[in-house]
Amino acid sequence: MKKNNSPLSQMGQRTEAPSISWLMEVALARPNLTSLAAGFTDNPSLPVSSVRELLEDLLASPQAGQAALQYGTTMGDPELRQLTASQLCRQDIGKAPAKLPPEYAPERMIITNGSQQMLYMVTEAMCDPGDIVLVEDPTYFVYLGITQSHGLRCRGIRLMNDGIDLEHLEAVLNELKKSGDLRRVKMLYLVTYFQNPSGVTTCFAKKAAALKLLKKYERDAGHPIYLLEDAAYRDLRFGGEDIPTALTLPGAASRVIYAGTYSKPFATGLRVGFGILPEPLLTVVSRIKGNHDFGTANLLQQALKRAIIKGHYDKHLVALRQRYHCKAQIMTRAIEHYFPPEVRWEKPTGGLYVWPDLPVPAGKQSRLFKTALDQGVLYVPGELCFADDAARPKPLNQMRLSFGGALEKNIETGIERLGKAIASFLKKPASGSRKAARK
Amino acid sequence: MKKNNSPLSQMGQRTEAPSISWLMEVALARPNLTSLAAGFTDNPSLPVSSVRELLEDLLASPQAGQAALQYGTTMGDPELRQLTASQLCRQDIGKAPAKLPPEYAPERMIITNGSQQMLYMVTEAMCDPGDIVLVEDPTYFVYLGITQSHGLRCRGIRLMNDGIDLEHLEAVLNELKKSGDLRRVKMLYLVTYFQNPSGVTTCFAKKAAALKLLKKYERDAGHPIYLLEDAAYRDLRFGGEDIPTALTLPGAASRVIYAGTYSKPFATGLRVGFGILPEPLLTVVSRIKGNHDFGTANLLQQALKRAIIKGHYDKHLVALRQRYHCKAQIMTRAIEHYFPPEVRWEKPTGGLYVWPDLPVPAGKQSRLFKTALDQGVLYVPGELCFADDAARPKPLNQMRLSFGGALEKNIETGIERLGKAIASFLKKPASGSRKAARK
Repeated sequence: MKKNNSPLSQMGQRTEAPSISWLMEVALARPNLTSLAAGFTDNPSLPVSSVRELLEDLLASPQAGQAALQYGTTMGDPELRQLTASQLCRQDIGKAPAKLPPEYAPERMIITNGSQQMLYMVTEAMCDPGDIVLVEDPTYFVYLGITQSHGLRCRGIRLMNDGIDLEHLEAVLNELKKSGDLRRVKMLYLVTYFQNPSGVTTCFAKKAAALKLLKKYERDAGHPIYLLEDAAYRDLRFGGEDIPTALTLPGAASRVIYAGTYSKPFATGLRVGFGILPEPLLTVVSRIKGNHDFGTANLLQQALKRAIIKGHYDKHLVALRQRYHCKAQIMTRAIEHYFPPEVRWEKPTGGLYVWPDLPVPAGKQSRLFKTALDQGVLYVPGELCFADDAARPKPLNQMRLSFGGALEKNIETGIERLGKAIASFLKKPASGSRKAARK
Repeated sequence: MKKNNSPLSQMGQRTEAPSISWLMEVALARPNLTSLAAGFTDNPSLPVSSVRELLEDLLASPQAGQAALQYGTTMGDPELRQLTASQLCRQDIGKAPAKLPPEYAPERMIITNGSQQMLYMVTEAMCDPGDIVLVEDPTYFVYLGITQSHGLRCRGIRLMNDGIDLEHLEAVLNELKKSGDLRRVKMLYLVTYFQNPSGVTTCFAKKAAALKLLKKYERDAGHPIYLLEDAAYRDLRFGGEDIPTALTLPGAASRVIYAGTYSKPFATGLRVGFGILPEPLLTVVSRIKGNHDFGTANLLQQALKRAIIKGHYDKHLVALRQRYHCKAQIMTRAIEHYFPPEVRWEKPTGGLYVWPDLPVPAGKQSRLFKTALDQGVLYVPGELCFADDAARPKPLNQMRLSFGGALEKNIETGIERLGKAIASFLKKPASGSRKAARK
């Protein structure tokens, strides 16, 4: 089994540096860079005075203060789970009865260190090396780091403006059935609201159809195939209608894993996320959580609980949505103004990202990426957001632009410079150079 | 590879419920129980007003406040790492030069969600199923949960009053060499200060000798064998001299992994720990940390940093040590008074635990455990703290008693009842029943 003299485990030997560290190195080497790459949230709107007030209040009572500074439970604060589950239920079905429907039972919820830890633990609980996860094409690149580290195979399912291409999903499932690999398929991972990186929101009909399709292939898989719905950006909606989660679908209680978070919509420095899980995953993930850290820091949970109870959270959301709406408009207006018309993109209605599709390569090794850097602008090359999937060449012509962390003026100048850089490749007189860049 | 139709991974199928959840169930079913089992820290001494002041101060500045509520870096706050490394160096060698010796380089430190997460990630980075970890006999039972979940084999090394039995360590290494299993040995895990559960502190000579022994067997192992020093309780010393860590040993920079924490000595609700790692583990664990959660909640790190800079941490430690000293005395005086003289135990000089060795079985299934419960007292059966190791029967006659979380009056009444329960088994007239209890 051991191939060499490394003291590392198979995972230790396999785990690559995350894309994010490469981006950070690039950024660190250029201190005056305008970063449209970071998934950071907006600094000026972070709820500093609100958190101060909440914590002051919490710690003014010796009893509440002591409880907050003591260990909590592995699953998380029961009241925070109840509040979170009620809120989710209310968002989904318009009401939250005292006894919540089984899909929203707080007993099925685990509080985690951001939703990232939930994604990690779910993957640990379900996937062995060689197992297959179906992901959106493109998908959240940090999740790809988890799959890489665990030696998983990913299959990318084409993403359209309203969610995955269902025909493609069925075609992939069929192909896996024929190749005998269906039994290695464990789940379909969807980032359903204002997706990172594409900004796409999955319509309800597609959630329903996807879950149905997974169910259809379960017999051949020989085991359940789960739908992991990552709703990290749901609360950052500033346009369009809210869409119910997959938890509202028939059979959801046994097949849908839901991951949510308070990090992005409230404060990333607080890092509290949560998951709702069907059995047997709930039991296993709670055990794994015990082994990871036996519970997310109680002080953070107590602070968030108060933010919810005292209305700070909802109030903050209203302001935050306006803020991101405004920043999104600054970015999209600048794109309209400065990007060549050949660039295709959609106006986001929530989240933190715009995902332009370019007529020239924009990957890590592209001349555009280097030129943009020379002009002082950093973006996330879209290629980082596509899984390794031999079934298609990795797309190279997209970029993820974030209006989350950047200052307004930097968004505008960043887009201006980027637009010029893109235009410089389109304007090249010789078609030969254009072709070369497409390689 | 798949043995059945479970959707779970090998790890998911393997991971058992942690002992702690069994204990919690027992406790929950009996609300009026006096628990001498919980590893909770002392509630009344939690630094509530101190944390309130620190956070108020931190969040009074919009700039510092925003930074604290924003994402940090995966490795942790650079200043907190610098402060922690300096403090550790000063504790070990009496001074902390501006440029710290390589063993204490802050670049080698990662901030984690308690030291537990560090133990988890180190294990992930190093150990495949079937690999072997050498542990103290007894050892920290939550670590045994990690090894169980990862399918590792543990070998218990006999623990004496001043650390592991070196002859036993050598004998085990020799035996593993002969059986060809040495190449599966990845590390020796030692809880070196006021060990959980035994209260034992490892003397410096034993750390040195242990590291030397590991080194000696490396050639046959074919790879480095690490010493993982878990110093979680170091700062909770209320008697005796402080002992330098294994980081002071020759070759430590390449073979010693050090895990520390601010949870136990400051506030368990803050849950900030740290590790110092040699390459290639440092790189791998930092990547794994990125996949887990890309960094411990920044607010907690900023709060702790301020606690250190403003002297709250050191001040708190002085008070906390006095407090635990006092609670330890209450427990040991009660033990002296109420426990039969046949019970052997040592006075702790730090930490949270007393580890009585009884002339009767005290395990999960023992009559003593049940009788104690009937009398309203819960303890941790010592058997939970011993690894599964076929080389010896699992010891059944110890109990872990914690004076950390219990109130003073409960410590006293708890020990009194426990003493009576123990005595009731010793007093049994028929020697036959004594014998039966020893089974």
